[in-house]
Amino acid sequence: MKFDVSPLREKLLEDLKKKVALAKEREIGDKLLILRIGDKKADISYENAIKKSAESVGMDVAVTVFDEGASEGDVLREVERGNKDGRIGGILIFHPLPKHFDAMAIDRAIVPEKDIDCLSPLNQWKIFTGQGKMMPATAKSALMIAEAMGDLEGKRVLIINRSMVIGKPLAMMLLDKNATVTLGHSRTKNIPQLAKDYDVVVYGTGQSRWVTADFVGEGQCIIDCGIAFDEKGKLTGDVDFDEVVDKAHLVTSVPGGVGSLTNLLLLDNMFVASI
Amino acid sequence: MKFDVSPLREKLLEDLKKKVALAKEREIGDKLLILRIGDKKADISYENAIKKSAESVGMDVAVTVFDEGASEGDVLREVERGNKDGRIGGILIFHPLPKHFDAMAIDRAIVPEKDIDCLSPLNQWKIFTGQGKMMPATAKSALMIAEAMGDLEGKRVLIINRSMVIGKPLAMMLLDKNATVTLGHSRTKNIPQLAKDYDVVVYGTGQSRWVTADFVGEGQCIIDCGIAFDEKGKLTGDVDFDEVVDKAHLVTSVPGGVGSLTNLLLLDNMFVASI
Repeated sequence: MKFDVSPLREKLLEDLKKKVALAKEREIGDKLLILRIGDKKADISYENAIKKSAESVGMDVAVTVFDEGASEGDVLREVERGNKDGRIGGILIFHPLPKHFDAMAIDRAIVPEKDIDCLSPLNQWKIFTGQGKMMPATAKSALMIAEAMGDLEGKRVLIINRSMVIGKPLAMMLLDKNATVTLGHSRTKNIPQLAKDYDVVVYGTGQSRWVTADFVGEGQCIIDCGIAFDEKGKLTGDVDFDEVVDKAHLVTSVPGGVGSLTNLLLLDNMFVASI
Repeated sequence: MKFDVSPLREKLLEDLKKKVALAKEREIGDKLLILRIGDKKADISYENAIKKSAESVGMDVAVTVFDEGASEGDVLREVERGNKDGRIGGILIFHPLPKHFDAMAIDRAIVPEKDIDCLSPLNQWKIFTGQGKMMPATAKSALMIAEAMGDLEGKRVLIINRSMVIGKPLAMMLLDKNATVTLGHSRTKNIPQLAKDYDVVVYGTGQSRWVTADFVGEGQCIIDCGIAFDEKGKLTGDVDFDEVVDKAHLVTSVPGGVGSLTNLLLLDNMFVASI
């Protein structure tokens, strides 16, 4: 059966509107600052999507655009300004940064409470120890969906992704919910057979529709974090949704699943420290 | 079959002797500083064991002992002195600290390169991202044994422990070796049945001899990180060794297994940044 994310999305929208209103009232951390270097198509498209999400919850967005040839110092100074500005609640810098930049130095320059992409060692360390509140948006979306699908206590969860933006933080968050968590990846053997044994499987490889009905165990919930394109250029996920939907107890679609919550959850990170 | 750790221990002793000699020659980070507050029996016993290990590799150890009533400031000043002393390569503070201390503040005061217990956020974060060299000694010992038991690429490993000193860092280190890693714990359901499916199982609950032959799958390697005492007060591990030894492909004993390497690996952490 298809898992419908719209109730989660509606709830998130309502909650976020209230938080933005409260932050505006208090004049604390209500604005988002976006830093963009150059005019890459992907960046502009992401920027427009974020602006639209922000607008839907009444949030103001400021965008600082730098030339492709800008110096690291210019960008660092702008980060510093954003750090000090009490009205700025989050700073988002589009990646990848130009090659002449020390990306890690720039990421770490953002103060942890405004680091909504969860790039700072401190925020990532907190996730590792189980005290994390600031979470990478995709992992946070997958967790929210997993929790909505059913109680996670004692459940067996398989995650096919070991990155710092999906697999690792999600594993730590799921452990905190008392799930038994397996991290798999490209070197994991016989995934179709392995996956069958799990109550919940999270896929995030970015290969189009490789997960077929053969992978699905009885009563299994599937969360698709994949972003891929098929041979016709159509957006798909890791899961062959049409084939899997009748066999899985619940499965998210792409588009319309995990990705429907990520931009809102990114904005929500602005308030985890303040509200 | 019993896994004999003595070849690993011999190799480690030889390597460590060379590192200590080199550090002495260079007059850099060759000494260990131990900070002990009060005269707890467990602390003194651990201190003596560490001193003995240090002596076996030619390492000098300085111990600073504080009264039970010492202030946090006194201890912090001594940490600071140790941080600045170029001859000190590692600082070890016995835990638990007195209740009136902010243990986290003291742990974090140690500079990361001398934080041989791997308590600092920076060292733990590095492990999370897969770049860690400084490792908690028990996790490091379990990893070393797992690697000696066989190639980990594509192997399925189950760890029954989700702490920051065993389960979580070990999981990250095993992922880096391309194993497929499962983290289980007290809320994991039906461990005897679950465990059977794994190539390698690491136990670390500290409950005496609860792992019986029923848990053991074909060709399975078992690493026992448990430290427990049976009803006669005898040191045991999680595994009922006598029952399991004939069924497991390889199994470590307690005593004589993981714990035989931990103190040496703790000392070895003094050199991960320097040699």
